[in-house]
Amino acid sequence: MRKIGIDLGGTNIAAGIVDENGTIIFKKSVPTGASRPKEQIIDDIATLCRELTSEANIPFSDIESVGIAVPGGVDEKSGEILFTPNIPFSGINICKILSEKLNGKRVGIANDANAATLAEVFCGAAKGADNAVMITLGTGVGGGIVIDKKIYSGSNGLAAEIGHFVIQVGGEKCGCGRRGCFEAYGSATALIRMTKDELNTCFMSGEPTLMAESSKISARTAFDAYKQGDAAAARVIDKYITYLANGISSLINIFQPDVFIIGGGVSGEKQFLIDLLQPKVDEEDFARKANKRTRLCTAVCGNDAGIIGAAFAV
Amino acid sequence: MRKIGIDLGGTNIAAGIVDENGTIIFKKSVPTGASRPKEQIIDDIATLCRELTSEANIPFSDIESVGIAVPGGVDEKSGEILFTPNIPFSGINICKILSEKLNGKRVGIANDANAATLAEVFCGAAKGADNAVMITLGTGVGGGIVIDKKIYSGSNGLAAEIGHFVIQVGGEKCGCGRRGCFEAYGSATALIRMTKDELNTCFMSGEPTLMAESSKISARTAFDAYKQGDAAAARVIDKYITYLANGISSLINIFQPDVFIIGGGVSGEKQFLIDLLQPKVDEEDFARKANKRTRLCTAVCGNDAGIIGAAFAV
Repeated sequence: MRKIGIDLGGTNIAAGIVDENGTIIFKKSVPTGASRPKEQIIDDIATLCRELTSEANIPFSDIESVGIAVPGGVDEKSGEILFTPNIPFSGINICKILSEKLNGKRVGIANDANAATLAEVFCGAAKGADNAVMITLGTGVGGGIVIDKKIYSGSNGLAAEIGHFVIQVGGEKCGCGRRGCFEAYGSATALIRMTKDELNTCFMSGEPTLMAESSKISARTAFDAYKQGDAAAARVIDKYITYLANGISSLINIFQPDVFIIGGGVSGEKQFLIDLLQPKVDEEDFARKANKRTRLCTAVCGNDAGIIGAAFAV
Repeated sequence: MRKIGIDLGGTNIAAGIVDENGTIIFKKSVPTGASRPKEQIIDDIATLCRELTSEANIPFSDIESVGIAVPGGVDEKSGEILFTPNIPFSGINICKILSEKLNGKRVGIANDANAATLAEVFCGAAKGADNAVMITLGTGVGGGIVIDKKIYSGSNGLAAEIGHFVIQVGGEKCGCGRRGCFEAYGSATALIRMTKDELNTCFMSGEPTLMAESSKISARTAFDAYKQGDAAAARVIDKYITYLANGISSLINIFQPDVFIIGGGVSGEKQFLIDLLQPKVDEEDFARKANKRTRLCTAVCGNDAGIIGAAFAV
C-alpha cells in the first residue's frame, strides 16, 4: 500500500509517498504562495502529486489515495474545507477538485493537528493505541483526538480545540476571546510570559538569575537555567508545569486514552518534561489507582506528522 | 426487537423490557440489599429477568439480550465490573455469571451515566444525534460521552469523568481530592453552597431576601427566589450559571457534539435553565460562528434512562 500525504501549510506545501508502515519513501515541497488564487494552489498540489511519483519511479496508478492535512476546520465526509484562518480555502471542496485533476483518485482531508495525532498512533509515540489525545505546545495550544484509531472531529469538524477549555475562570486573556483558557497557561507563549514576569521580579528584588543572561527570552530560557540549578528559573518551571499538568490531568479524566502525547516546541524537552509532569499527573488522574493508566509521552513524528497523518486519514 | 435493561443501583435494582423505540413495555424493581453476598444479588437479577417476561407474557426466548447499567467503571469488552464505590461488585464479571444463569443469553454492561446518555441519544433529548455529551448536575457532576452512537468509556472504562476537569486551578476542594473541579462549581451541592454563602452575606448586611424564608436550603431555593425578582438570589444564580456555562463551553470546544444534554436534579429547571445558559455559551463556544453548532437541552428520559440505555448498550 502506498498513499500520498500532503501537508498544506501557510508557507509550504509538503508532500510525501507513505508506505503501510508510515515510512515516507519520497518527499518534496513547494512554496504555498498563499496570496495566489486558490485554483493555482490546487494546480500546484496536483502537479506535486504527479512529480512525486515520477521522481520516485512509482506508477501513479499504484497510489491508493491522496490525503490532505489542512490548518483549519474540515468536513471529512464531504471533503469541504470549512474554515482556514491563514490560507484562502474556506468553503472549498478541495477533495472534489483535486480528485478531478488526478483522474478520479480518491482524495480525503483532515485537520492538520488531528492528522499529526493519527500519525503518532499509526507509527509514532502512540503506536498500537486505540485512543490517543495529543496537545501541541507552541505559540498556542493545538490538539488532536483519535478514537478507535480514527480522527474525532466532532459534529461540525471543529472539535479538539483542546487549547480552549478554561482552567482558570476569569484568568489570563486568551487569543480566542475567552479568559483563562489552557492555551493561556500551557503554550510556549505562556511560558515566555511567566519567564519575563519572573525576570521583572528578580530585577526589582536584585536576585541574580541565569535567565537574565539570555539575549532573547524563549521557551527554552527557563528550562536551560533550571537545569543549571537557578532558583528563579525553578519557580517559573514549577508554575508552568503545575498549570500544564493540571490541564493534562483534566483531559485524561475526560478521555482516559491509552496514550497522551505532547508535541510542539516545548516537547523538545522530551523525557525531562515528562519526568516533571508525571508526579503531578499521578496526583490528579481520577484513575490513578486503576490497573490500566494513560501513558504520557512526547511526540516523535516531528515535521513529517502532517504528511503521514494525512496519508493515513484516507 | 425486545431487550431487557437493568439499572443496578445502590438502593434498588430496576429492570424493564424495552422495545426498539426505547419504550419500556414492562418494568419491575426489587431492593438491592447491597450488603448481601454478591451471588445473592446476581441471583435476584436473574429471577427479576424471568419474572419480567412471565408477568409481561413474553417468552424469555424473545428477549434478544440483557444489559446492565452499573454505578462505576466497567470493561464493556470483557464484561467485568472494574470499580463500584457503593456496591460490592468490583472485579466481578457479572456478564459471564448472569449469562450462565440465563441459559447463555447475551449479557452486556455499561456505566450508568454513559447508559443514560445513550438512552437520550436513542429515544430522548438527543434523538438522532451521532455525538452527544451529557452532564448530570446532582450531588456531584457525572457525565457520559456517546460518539458515533456508541458509548465512549476510554481505554480503561473510566473515561467521561466530566465532573473532574479543573475550571479553577487551586479553587474549591473537590470530593475527588483535586481542587477547582467543575463538580465543585457546577453541582447542585455547589449551588447550595453558593446560596448559603449569599444568605450569610445578606444576614451580615441586613439585606432582606426571599431565600431566608426557606426552611431548608436546596438547589431550588435560589432559582425560586430569583423567579420572584429577589436581588440576592439573582447574584447566586448569576454566579452559578457563569461557572456552569464556562464548563459547558469548554466541553463543547473539546467535543463539538451534535447535542449537549443537561440531566440530574438541577435540570428540572428545564428551558428556564437553558435560557440562562445559552447566551453565555454563545459567547464562549469556539465554533460560535460555525454553521452547525451544538444544541443545548435538558434530559427527558429521567429515572428510566438507566434501563433504556442499558438495553441499547448491548
